[in-house]
Amino acid sequence: VVSRSVHGRRVRLGPGGEFDLIRRVLAGAPALSPAVVVGPGDDCAVVDADGPMALTTDLSIEDVHFRRAWLTPEEVGWRAGASALSDLAAVAAEPVVILVSLALAPEDVSSGWGERVMAGIEAAARDVGASLVGGDVSRSPGPAIIDVVAAGRAASPVLRCGARAGDEVWVTGALGGAGAAVELLEAGRPLPDALRRALARPVPRVREALWLAGRADLHALIDLSDGLAGDLGHIAAASNVAVELETARVPVAPATEAARPDPEERLMLALTAGEDYELCIVAAPGALEPLTGPFRERFGIALTRVGGVRGGQGVWMVGQDSPPRRLERGGFSHFAPTAEAPPGPAPHDPERGP
Amino acid sequence: VVSRSVHGRRVRLGPGGEFDLIRRVLAGAPALSPAVVVGPGDDCAVVDADGPMALTTDLSIEDVHFRRAWLTPEEVGWRAGASALSDLAAVAAEPVVILVSLALAPEDVSSGWGERVMAGIEAAARDVGASLVGGDVSRSPGPAIIDVVAAGRAASPVLRCGARAGDEVWVTGALGGAGAAVELLEAGRPLPDALRRALARPVPRVREALWLAGRADLHALIDLSDGLAGDLGHIAAASNVAVELETARVPVAPATEAARPDPEERLMLALTAGEDYELCIVAAPGALEPLTGPFRERFGIALTRVGGVRGGQGVWMVGQDSPPRRLERGGFSHFAPTAEAPPGPAPHDPERGP
Repeated sequence: VVSRSVHGRRVRLGPGGEFDLIRRVLAGAPALSPAVVVGPGDDCAVVDADGPMALTTDLSIEDVHFRRAWLTPEEVGWRAGASALSDLAAVAAEPVVILVSLALAPEDVSSGWGERVMAGIEAAARDVGASLVGGDVSRSPGPAIIDVVAAGRAASPVLRCGARAGDEVWVTGALGGAGAAVELLEAGRPLPDALRRALARPVPRVREALWLAGRADLHALIDLSDGLAGDLGHIAAASNVAVELETARVPVAPATEAARPDPEERLMLALTAGEDYELCIVAAPGALEPLTGPFRERFGIALTRVGGVRGGQGVWMVGQDSPPRRLERGGFSHFAPTAEAPPGPAPHDPERGP
Repeated sequence: VVSRSVHGRRVRLGPGGEFDLIRRVLAGAPALSPAVVVGPGDDCAVVDADGPMALTTDLSIEDVHFRRAWLTPEEVGWRAGASALSDLAAVAAEPVVILVSLALAPEDVSSGWGERVMAGIEAAARDVGASLVGGDVSRSPGPAIIDVVAAGRAASPVLRCGARAGDEVWVTGALGGAGAAVELLEAGRPLPDALRRALARPVPRVREALWLAGRADLHALIDLSDGLAGDLGHIAAASNVAVELETARVPVAPATEAARPDPEERLMLALTAGEDYELCIVAAPGALEPLTGPFRERFGIALTRVGGVRGGQGVWMVGQDSPPRRLERGGFSHFAPTAEAPPGPAPHDPERGP
């Protein structure tokens, strides 16, 4: 395959090893979305989303965001793609295209590792209806580097800044699985299937976000990439409100027990481990409760109320037996001094892996 | 500045060192383009380009695309931004927004190097009317990595595939300056101002492309990022034609004489050195000739016919005194065997610098 028909135009890719890699991946890709006016092979892709378009870009760096020894190349690619696509879910946008920048050592090209990574990214995009339409391939003198750009239709984007006092806070799925998987891998211990899936094949909650946004007035939305504590902090800051987290209600992934037998520690893992890629949703009281049954039926995962919004600042843990405790600095900062790092695994930390 | 007003919404950035870096750069940025529906600080930016949008992403990697010792951080950023914006020029798209993924060593954050790089990227975007609306910042365990995503309005994109037998081939500006600058820097020799500017502050020919596309029917368009020989190869392959290059007409940058006194060698430099970021334009005979005067008057650079298109394949050098010679493999491939590398500087080669 040296060319693809794009709206009646044949766009041929020129010569060169980097084009060969792209060409081989495109050979296995399905037909381009009708929104794609110009597909791969020119200086730009051109997309007509027929309205506002959400744009995001998301880095995955070897030994920072992933370890090669822990994942197949397809899984490395899937995670990188899912992470960018999850950002589209986080504003309730419908994925249309992705572009991929890939920097690889020459041996990663000759061994086929890079091509398998690209195939994993493409599979994640295809799974939510997005077409791979371009990117850049370069040599890396250091770690393998993946940057996935995702673009989607966002006629009514749901932002972080719409939470109001009195609202409810909800999450999809169960939390802590990816974090627990990393802990077990670091300890050289066996990985239950559920944890391996959480780490290797996270599902960007694109369909879930669109389904919910079509059925309820969502006030705020974010995907859990930094950990629930940190991401609630983003909502609280953007909306200028306080978020109260009812810790007893947090849906901790059962399989995390393999990594953290103590329930309190398991909860902290679920609050602070990143890259679960579930959604956190803020909506008016009663708005989501009627949807929990249909949601579980359709998507096979839970929709759980975990807290509420009040006037004030910051994120607070509330329980039956103890006074509210403020989560001073949840989530993970790439450049924060160690003293400020949150407890639990830090998913972007090169010392800890993904 | 901890928040920006975005269409009446205040989007606040959460805590964290990476947000601090972005926050400081945004503090100096001008108002967002009216096309920006959601600016920096949420999971995605949202842009309404009111029609088809061109998308491109472009990697700049330390010791592959740039050397830190040769350029100020602002220049590193400008080049990275200009390179992505040049891809928009290459389809005659009007820049609207950029997103930047930046992977840095912690000391590059604490020293301010990363912030200055980001400021350089933002300056290049601002210069052509684009707003910085998002990105990703991560720690790098290896080289500094910059990936610039550029998006622009492309109601009538000009692609590589429209060249037809009988057309003329034109280029803007003068070629070889960036390549000559790299050669002199590698040799530890002094750099004339004109060569330093060519390397450090290339101008993405956005205005030039839009001006030309508004005044003539352009059949094909590409920016000179791989070198004229290689980029003509892309046009020839995409259009399924042969391109004849009249080597005597190629506008070699005069200052390249400092690096290559021999005129023949200077020509080869101009043909094979990449990252001049000038444009190569294919149009019907006589279509561009009347525009050369007004073009030079408006933009201060030349518009020069360098060859023509005929039936066939490949890129051919034609001169008065010698038979046509085929340029077997022009431009630079990141992963091609050394034996296939073109003569002259290879701009993406880690052994040679930018």
